[in-house]
Amino acid sequence: MLGIPNPPRPILTLTSDFGLADTYVAAMKAAILRFAPEAMLVDITHEIPPQDVVAASFAVERALDAFAPGTIHLAVVDPGVGTQRRILVVEMHRQLVVCPDNGLITWAWRRLRKGKAHKLDWRPKTSSNTFHGRDIMAPSAAMLAAGRALREIASPIRDPILLEIRPARPPVRIGRIIHVDHFGNATTNVPRDALPKTVRISVKNQPLGPLKRTYSDVPAGQPLALIGSAYLLEIAVRNGSAAKNLSLKVGDPVRIFGASD
Amino acid sequence: MLGIPNPPRPILTLTSDFGLADTYVAAMKAAILRFAPEAMLVDITHEIPPQDVVAASFAVERALDAFAPGTIHLAVVDPGVGTQRRILVVEMHRQLVVCPDNGLITWAWRRLRKGKAHKLDWRPKTSSNTFHGRDIMAPSAAMLAAGRALREIASPIRDPILLEIRPARPPVRIGRIIHVDHFGNATTNVPRDALPKTVRISVKNQPLGPLKRTYSDVPAGQPLALIGSAYLLEIAVRNGSAAKNLSLKVGDPVRIFGASD
Amino acid sequence: MLGIPNPPRPILTLTSDFGLADTYVAAMKAAILRFAPEAMLVDITHEIPPQDVVAASFAVERALDAFAPGTIHLAVVDPGVGTQRRILVVEMHRQLVVCPDNGLITWAWRRLRKGKAHKLDWRPKTSSNTFHGRDIMAPSAAMLAAGRALREIASPIRDPILLEIRPARPPVRIGRIIHVDHFGNATTNVPRDALPKTVRISVKNQPLGPLKRTYSDVPAGQPLALIGSAYLLEIAVRNGSAAKNLSLKVGDPVRIFGASD
Repeated sequence: MLGIPNPPRPILTLTSDFGLADTYVAAMKAAILRFAPEAMLVDITHEIPPQDVVAASFAVERALDAFAPGTIHLAVVDPGVGTQRRILVVEMHRQLVVCPDNGLITWAWRRLRKGKAHKLDWRPKTSSNTFHGRDIMAPSAAMLAAGRALREIASPIRDPILLEIRPARPPVRIGRIIHVDHFGNATTNVPRDALPKTVRISVKNQPLGPLKRTYSDVPAGQPLALIGSAYLLEIAVRNGSAAKNLSLKVGDPVRIFGASD
Repeated sequence: MLGIPNPPRPILTLTSDFGLADTYVAAMKAAILRFAPEAMLVDITHEIPPQDVVAASFAVERALDAFAPGTIHLAVVDPGVGTQRRILVVEMHRQLVVCPDNGLITWAWRRLRKGKAHKLDWRPKTSSNTFHGRDIMAPSAAMLAAGRALREIASPIRDPILLEIRPARPPVRIGRIIHVDHFGNATTNVPRDALPKTVRISVKNQPLGPLKRTYSDVPAGQPLALIGSAYLLEIAVRNGSAAKNLSLKVGDPVRIFGASD
Repeated sequence: MLGIPNPPRPILTLTSDFGLADTYVAAMKAAILRFAPEAMLVDITHEIPPQDVVAASFAVERALDAFAPGTIHLAVVDPGVGTQRRILVVEMHRQLVVCPDNGLITWAWRRLRKGKAHKLDWRPKTSSNTFHGRDIMAPSAAMLAAGRALREIASPIRDPILLEIRPARPPVRIGRIIHVDHFGNATTNVPRDALPKTVRISVKNQPLGPLKRTYSDVPAGQPLALIGSAYLLEIAVRNGSAAKNLSLKVGDPVRIFGASD
């Protein structure tokens, strides 16, 4: 692995659309622990909406941003399981991501840049046709966590599948909501760095004025625009749900007005 | 423990109907870590429907199938807490299960076979009357994980309580749905090995034709029958919910027609 | 840390209102593991209702009661994030709690007693204005878990913010429901020790008679009063939901009649 350190207790994260009611997440963990018994397992989330590759894409970028070099990320949202779709191993931020080649890597690829993509060549002797997360991807991620060289199980490729989602670039007039969180805060695809110093924001024809610094800068129940913890433009309601109060959902536009508008 | 290895970092899994909103799961983990500070804890699921011993039974079998020899499984769905019902320790697959003697072990007992049942003799000096998972079962599971001999805390029995659920045996004409997962896939009690080579499946009077290999073998939105990741007959809808589209629920029959029907 | 031991693998627990669908919990764990790579992480719950400081207060007391000396508890329900509100580090039960100074410590402070409060002085070089859990509290908790002396990052204070919730003291005539759990059991603020030997309980004008020992002391579907696993007076329905059957919610009164009433 080019410059990727091997910590004594490797961290391996898991992201999926499996939910927590079934035993599928545990099945992947069992497979991992057979190959990497010393691994530290951390769940990113397993509540990605079923088959929502785009939502998983945002979660994986957050995981890459948060964790230290050497971390291995396993992300399984895999509607094409059992077909000939490739499986990726992507080097990025001195970490590795193992995931299906279905666009799941897109947001990290475009926001964090400098990814190096590989296709996974390793396959087990036998595997199910419906759970490659358990039978192929988890063992591969675990082998990498246990120190196996990437080149032994994967080969470089130049064309991972990428979806039509990308961080906004200046000058930004319209952003798009890409995620609505548990609190009802709506995150957009507009990075802090893509905004001019002076802006006014509006959403659903409701003017929110200039960016605020934090939620408490407006009275309880009032909407605001601010830079969220992912350093993206976010729409929120103090002590409330912007998604509910303003009827916001993924894909909705957010308008940005500069000083001269 | 007869042939059960003691790994340096023992794995201890947890299954319950406690949900994740309360502090009960953490209370069991705290109790475990007092007796087995080196244990690796893995949640199987805590979203077993309240008091649903049958659902827990399927989860525990999946856990036994997935994990390596030496793993200890703690499973607490315990409507009889505080009564004189026994507590079991079952050896199976070179692993151990600690659970109430209320039928929870049934599916593993019948599908994986060759279980050896014991009743737990160990009791703490004091305990609550409403949370034996925390006060009795978690410490016992942890002691076993930390290397304590099974015979020191439990005695062999021959009659664990078993429920009326069992894997179908050939010739199978009717299977039963035993689990509906997060995606709406419906798993039956019919093992792959119990099916003849050529079959046609129908459910709710809807013919699904022969077994498919994987979800993508039918168009999106279409129902299919296939062998799922537990190597049981499964009813699914590609990119959709079989449970919703076909109104399937636990207990519903699935019809199996052989070549001669 | 006055008398607080430093175990070889420190335990660090997490409590929040973040839910499990987003990546926020994982972001805190990533921050912790950068400062305390050997830590054992245990989730208490992340399903505290959004901004519900009182509910978090009960969860933290349960965590302090359950875990061994030396455990560090991180609790983040933080509607005042980004403002000048203080951050606390509280020593209690030979453990430490890191949380915002917004009343979250109240129930533990009053039920377990003998807390020593400190305000956190440590701040990172840069931090977001909306996620101090990740940027300030998680690193601080991790530093403490890794053995850093409390006095190096915090200073004693005498006035942590406390809310109007407290354990009932004898003679108790009316208790209050403080938590409704996943099963629909309703826990009150009445400790076992505050009750006389002979009592009768009623709720919503329904007499429940004297305390029962465990759920199975009444027929299925019947309500009862008993001492729950937190050693508080609890209202339950055997194999059912007291919250649903009796329409109970947090704040509702429970009446206690002594021998002489």
